[in-house]
Amino acid sequence: MRMYDLIAKKRDGKALTTEEINYLIDGYVKGEIPDYQMSAFLMAVYFQGMTKEETHAMTMAVAHSGDMVDLSGITGIKVDKHSTGGVGDKITLIIAPMVAAQGVRVAKMSGRGLGHTGGTIDKLESIPGFRTDLNQKEFFETVNKTGLSVIGQSGNMTPADKMMYALRDVTATVESIPLIAVSIMGKKLAAGSDCILLDVKTGSGAFMKSVDDAILLAQEMVEIGERAGKRTEAVITNMDVPLGKNIGNALEVQEAVAILKGEGPKDLHQESVNLAASMLHLAGKGSLEECKVMAEKTLTDGSALSHFADMVKAQGGDETYIQHPENFKDTAFHYEVKAQKSGYITHMNTEEIGISSTLLGAGRETKESIIDPAAGIVIEAKTGDMVKEGDLLATLYANKEELFEASAKRYANAIEIKDEAPSKQHVIFARVTRDGVERFD
Amino acid sequence: MRMYDLIAKKRDGKALTTEEINYLIDGYVKGEIPDYQMSAFLMAVYFQGMTKEETHAMTMAVAHSGDMVDLSGITGIKVDKHSTGGVGDKITLIIAPMVAAQGVRVAKMSGRGLGHTGGTIDKLESIPGFRTDLNQKEFFETVNKTGLSVIGQSGNMTPADKMMYALRDVTATVESIPLIAVSIMGKKLAAGSDCILLDVKTGSGAFMKSVDDAILLAQEMVEIGERAGKRTEAVITNMDVPLGKNIGNALEVQEAVAILKGEGPKDLHQESVNLAASMLHLAGKGSLEECKVMAEKTLTDGSALSHFADMVKAQGGDETYIQHPENFKDTAFHYEVKAQKSGYITHMNTEEIGISSTLLGAGRETKESIIDPAAGIVIEAKTGDMVKEGDLLATLYANKEELFEASAKRYANAIEIKDEAPSKQHVIFARVTRDGVERFD
Repeated sequence: MRMYDLIAKKRDGKALTTEEINYLIDGYVKGEIPDYQMSAFLMAVYFQGMTKEETHAMTMAVAHSGDMVDLSGITGIKVDKHSTGGVGDKITLIIAPMVAAQGVRVAKMSGRGLGHTGGTIDKLESIPGFRTDLNQKEFFETVNKTGLSVIGQSGNMTPADKMMYALRDVTATVESIPLIAVSIMGKKLAAGSDCILLDVKTGSGAFMKSVDDAILLAQEMVEIGERAGKRTEAVITNMDVPLGKNIGNALEVQEAVAILKGEGPKDLHQESVNLAASMLHLAGKGSLEECKVMAEKTLTDGSALSHFADMVKAQGGDETYIQHPENFKDTAFHYEVKAQKSGYITHMNTEEIGISSTLLGAGRETKESIIDPAAGIVIEAKTGDMVKEGDLLATLYANKEELFEASAKRYANAIEIKDEAPSKQHVIFARVTRDGVERFD
Repeated sequence: MRMYDLIAKKRDGKALTTEEINYLIDGYVKGEIPDYQMSAFLMAVYFQGMTKEETHAMTMAVAHSGDMVDLSGITGIKVDKHSTGGVGDKITLIIAPMVAAQGVRVAKMSGRGLGHTGGTIDKLESIPGFRTDLNQKEFFETVNKTGLSVIGQSGNMTPADKMMYALRDVTATVESIPLIAVSIMGKKLAAGSDCILLDVKTGSGAFMKSVDDAILLAQEMVEIGERAGKRTEAVITNMDVPLGKNIGNALEVQEAVAILKGEGPKDLHQESVNLAASMLHLAGKGSLEECKVMAEKTLTDGSALSHFADMVKAQGGDETYIQHPENFKDTAFHYEVKAQKSGYITHMNTEEIGISSTLLGAGRETKESIIDPAAGIVIEAKTGDMVKEGDLLATLYANKEELFEASAKRYANAIEIKDEAPSKQHVIFARVTRDGVERFD
């Protein structure tokens, strides 16, 4: 088998066999296939796509390119959850304890933030003492004891994905639905859970800019998961506005705690209940409607909050911050962004808002950047709200006063104010299962 | 400027500016742009093509990426000629002395053969003593004295083309008409002649398998040449059968000499006269019809042959081999390929015939292969000929008897014999100039 022939085959719109895909992934990880051939192949995939069989085969090859996590040391059904990434997305912090409170296990490996989106690991590390580097024994013990644990990726998981993603990132081949599906599902299959909930975000702050593309990606991923014997579902959620009010690591933990106490913004509450219900449903806890009731109950009876506190404690974190989120250290400086004119907020460029937060120190511009856990944004007016000139749009938090100018300008430019009210914002656009697509209009 | 953005721009079907193309070629030659980004870009070009402006700009950047040859030390009009490569293509050996005999200068740098096609340099080196490594002074003196000289490429000409071609060769991005045009014309513009004749071959032994694709390539190249201020024309010639009867280095020199003596196969004679006439026409020697008469005259009056012998002598070769081609050393072994059945030869897979010759030692399988100058094939029956079972199809020449089995099998399989006669074979399909395409039906 020659890599040249596989490139030419894909270039000419033909489908590779499973054997050929295994050769390709295996050879690339071993360094036998050079980057310059792989990047030509990936660009050919960008143009010609991949069949369901190819996508499945490549996902399996990527999943098996490194260590496969064995979660059999954890009792009960394990449900994993993946978000395609958004701004102010603290959903994992909320729904993992919610489903754990109903007896479903969440043993989750999560990532760090890069660019305009944050990472769950960074958010949890804003809690003093919280460790994300548990070894396998500690990880399993935490899940068995508290029902959940969230740690950083360790070991040699899916090296093929790491290598391919780094290459795609510099060769303009990221934007390919089958390649995105392979990357996400390869990692999820290697991570070892029984069921997978995919949160596919769409809109100005998400990678998928349209609902239709998000549904296509969700369908690919659900099919891959089901073929691999994992119950898999996806929800298509709105990232055309930031999720909730808070952006920034400690700020998001505080907002997550508010939701767990039955408080907090309505959109975030609604999305959390829906996604937690989907996870419970995947784990066989009942109908989706029944699972919504169960999910709501964990917020009203305080059980989700106590599960979260237990996990924080078990992972070395100071759980008094969960009981008293006001303990989180404030930044040295605040800055108020005010409306330049009166009217309705008709659109928020959410990617720009994410970048505005990054500029305050809340995110990473490069992998080497050091983040400020206290920095970030608290939003006071969102799409659909009516504002008067001079009204507070958002408060920016930073420990260096000179960061405000660029950040505030970016934030203000991301807000569109017009005379007419926009149409109502969706929280969830659609649900994708093996049985099909259910759209919520 | 970032290479990433240029890849994404081309991927999305947009045209790069001249400045962007210069950045790309310059950065690649300097090693600042890595192979893996270049190969992704080239694959995007494969799918999205390039505009005439992009193709022109890239050709100029490639031409200027290394040394530009200055032929001003040679008196008179210099006409260059390029063939896209074929089997048994000894045209340069014939037409360079023909046009030199009419006072047009040919100062040509040529290449070696690889794969199923031969190279003019290898053919000339089969003449004992012939030097292809003249320095510039010797090169200019030879042209000024004999009217022509053919040498190998030396110095640092078009390094961008060498690097890009090597990359395209292993990433399945060779088959792109604009990239082929850039590669050929970049070298031709750097080679410094005033006018350029392009022999674009089409058919089973050529890179361009269809006449239409050959015309598209010819049009791109003619446009590039004319834009660069060089009079440029192309002829589309038939490579669906080998050219002439002889394949192999010394064998092809012998056949070229036969044509120069007014003998030899009719197809080769016809093509030689036509191409020589085109070169004379490009040099302003008269109408195409007048130039055909001039070209024929050089064969009947012996002037082309004497110019060839003069060049051979000036480049250190033994010119007695030109006067007495029977002096060329025969191979130790011959092998006769005979017809397995009676009928008409309806098709010759010319690429396979080229490979059959390579297997005898006449060509290079890899750049490191050593060729046998005496090895090759003399064809006795060609497409359109009627043969009887047992008739001689071809004689194979080799110095190792064990080479015949594989070569003869390949040759026999390349010949299609059927009951009905095929339609007549074209020698020249079309002529492409700045004024348009003239097809010969």
